[in-house]
Amino acid sequence: MVAGGSGLNKTIIGVMGPGAADPALEAVGEALGRRLAEAGWLVLCGGREAGVMGAVCRGVSQVGGTVIGILPGESPAGASPHVTIPIATGLGSARNNINVLSSTVVIACGMGAGTASEVALALKAGKDVVLLASSPESLAFWSQLAPAQVHLAGDVDEAVGLVRDCLPPD
Amino acid sequence: MVAGGSGLNKTIIGVMGPGAADPALEAVGEALGRRLAEAGWLVLCGGREAGVMGAVCRGVSQVGGTVIGILPGESPAGASPHVTIPIATGLGSARNNINVLSSTVVIACGMGAGTASEVALALKAGKDVVLLASSPESLAFWSQLAPAQVHLAGDVDEAVGLVRDCLPPD
Amino acid sequence: MVAGGSGLNKTIIGVMGPGAADPALEAVGEALGRRLAEAGWLVLCGGREAGVMGAVCRGVSQVGGTVIGILPGESPAGASPHVTIPIATGLGSARNNINVLSSTVVIACGMGAGTASEVALALKAGKDVVLLASSPESLAFWSQLAPAQVHLAGDVDEAVGLVRDCLPPD
Amino acid sequence: MVAGGSGLNKTIIGVMGPGAADPALEAVGEALGRRLAEAGWLVLCGGREAGVMGAVCRGVSQVGGTVIGILPGESPAGASPHVTIPIATGLGSARNNINVLSSTVVIACGMGAGTASEVALALKAGKDVVLLASSPESLAFWSQLAPAQVHLAGDVDEAVGLVRDCLPPD
Repeated sequence: MVAGGSGLNKTIIGVMGPGAADPALEAVGEALGRRLAEAGWLVLCGGREAGVMGAVCRGVSQVGGTVIGILPGESPAGASPHVTIPIATGLGSARNNINVLSSTVVIACGMGAGTASEVALALKAGKDVVLLASSPESLAFWSQLAPAQVHLAGDVDEAVGLVRDCLPPD
Repeated sequence: MVAGGSGLNKTIIGVMGPGAADPALEAVGEALGRRLAEAGWLVLCGGREAGVMGAVCRGVSQVGGTVIGILPGESPAGASPHVTIPIATGLGSARNNINVLSSTVVIACGMGAGTASEVALALKAGKDVVLLASSPESLAFWSQLAPAQVHLAGDVDEAVGLVRDCLPPD
Repeated sequence: MVAGGSGLNKTIIGVMGPGAADPALEAVGEALGRRLAEAGWLVLCGGREAGVMGAVCRGVSQVGGTVIGILPGESPAGASPHVTIPIATGLGSARNNINVLSSTVVIACGMGAGTASEVALALKAGKDVVLLASSPESLAFWSQLAPAQVHLAGDVDEAVGLVRDCLPPD
Repeated sequence: MVAGGSGLNKTIIGVMGPGAADPALEAVGEALGRRLAEAGWLVLCGGREAGVMGAVCRGVSQVGGTVIGILPGESPAGASPHVTIPIATGLGSARNNINVLSSTVVIACGMGAGTASEVALALKAGKDVVLLASSPESLAFWSQLAPAQVHLAGDVDEAVGLVRDCLPPD
């Protein structure tokens, strides 16, 4: 079995965030990874050993969860050592669409150009998106684009609660 | 030779915009396609017979230019009849990354979730982006993300001028 | 932890095979999935509930292993219920390149057009390929293309042994 | 208008072939590019300045035709200077599926691992494939996989004739 679920839980929560992050944002990413894994979900991210991705992988790993890393490169080189399932896509940023299609709910932890592409692709695919550590400009923009799909979380606990609200009932 | 350039001009200008657009925005897209083709550039868009994409194709076609349609589907079915070069990618929204990688400069004409993904991917790839028919929220968000790469155009003429300014010197 | 390895074994063995298979070939796929999971490897396949893919998923599941399904569609619909990690790519057959890039060694179990594309992409990427349930024409063609990378297995046991020989030493 | 057709001919013939080719095979590729362009078709290939791709681009260019280059990299760097329409996909070998989906008929000129992936993906997509400069092993393998879709050409003239036979009537 895969850790993080009784029986075989295949709910995947995607966490997107910039590859360059300050220590405060990395701490948020790490706590988020930990909490999502503790909640029994599979966690998915961009998989690289950098910024929010690397922090999420660390957090999931700390509690023995499973984290899927969807890598842009042609090999697992460059993956976080804490990735459980490394997927080498060779697609560069086109892999961002896989990140969101494979996730039931997407959390954007911080914002950057790559993260923005993932939020946009998630909205395009009809997914719910939780914004964490968001700027007012970011909230204003995404809410204007897709008000029913965008949710603002003030902290990690609230993000996890919003994810739970967005999931289909068991 | 391909129309739209003396000698063999391979400068490709990408126009991104929502597949659902009101008549006013379609008119902007059509004028933009016309003007870009008249300027001697190849034009690239999402290629579908819908919204801004369809309008851009009509505009390019009116002046005998060349428009490349990068289609999401597995066949040219659904392409605008005015597309000169239909490319069937079968990639869905992952094709949005091809749209921006293949374009020297990207123009966003209006905004939607798909268009936002293209702006974000263009910024990620280091491209200049011209925003046309933009909301204040859109301008504020993208400018915050990548101030040096985002340019606001008030109308089609200004957009064409900004594109010219962004191109490398001959 | 993910089942199938002591510590955190991230070696992924990819099994490719036709989506339409007769009962004899499905039995081979099922036995192969079982044996690869018992050997402690992660197993990867195309993930659909069809032919060799579905059989491999069943086999892995029977012994509590982990099987990654790289799906062609935009959602996990159509996945084998036995897939542990469903990845929705939305790429159609372009996802075949992810299958081989993510696998350390590739096994072709039977042959079809999709499987042939995966063998070819694996060879292009420099991977070792084990041919199981192969025709003489198939062996002759692939051996001519890349003699050093193509290995013929007479049965499931031999395939597992060849995979082990192809893996880098611990 | 795009050269090579009266009115607006959008029939695209894809030519696939190895990036490493001896002078004899390059000469075949060059003649093929020339003949396809003279026949009024758009020509598509992998676009790199290497082997059969480079040769096809030269041939098309010699007679003023249009050749679309579907490039694996993230920029047009590395494209043949004779490519008319450079498409930068950033997808590596996953772009091979675009090559075949965008082509009405596919010609394999010589054989290699990449070319084999394109033949396989073309057959999977239901396309007709013409084998030129083929080995007996190649013909035997592909004919076994998809007898109705595989056609053997003895020379460039025959390949062009087979392409014509495969096209839907005007």
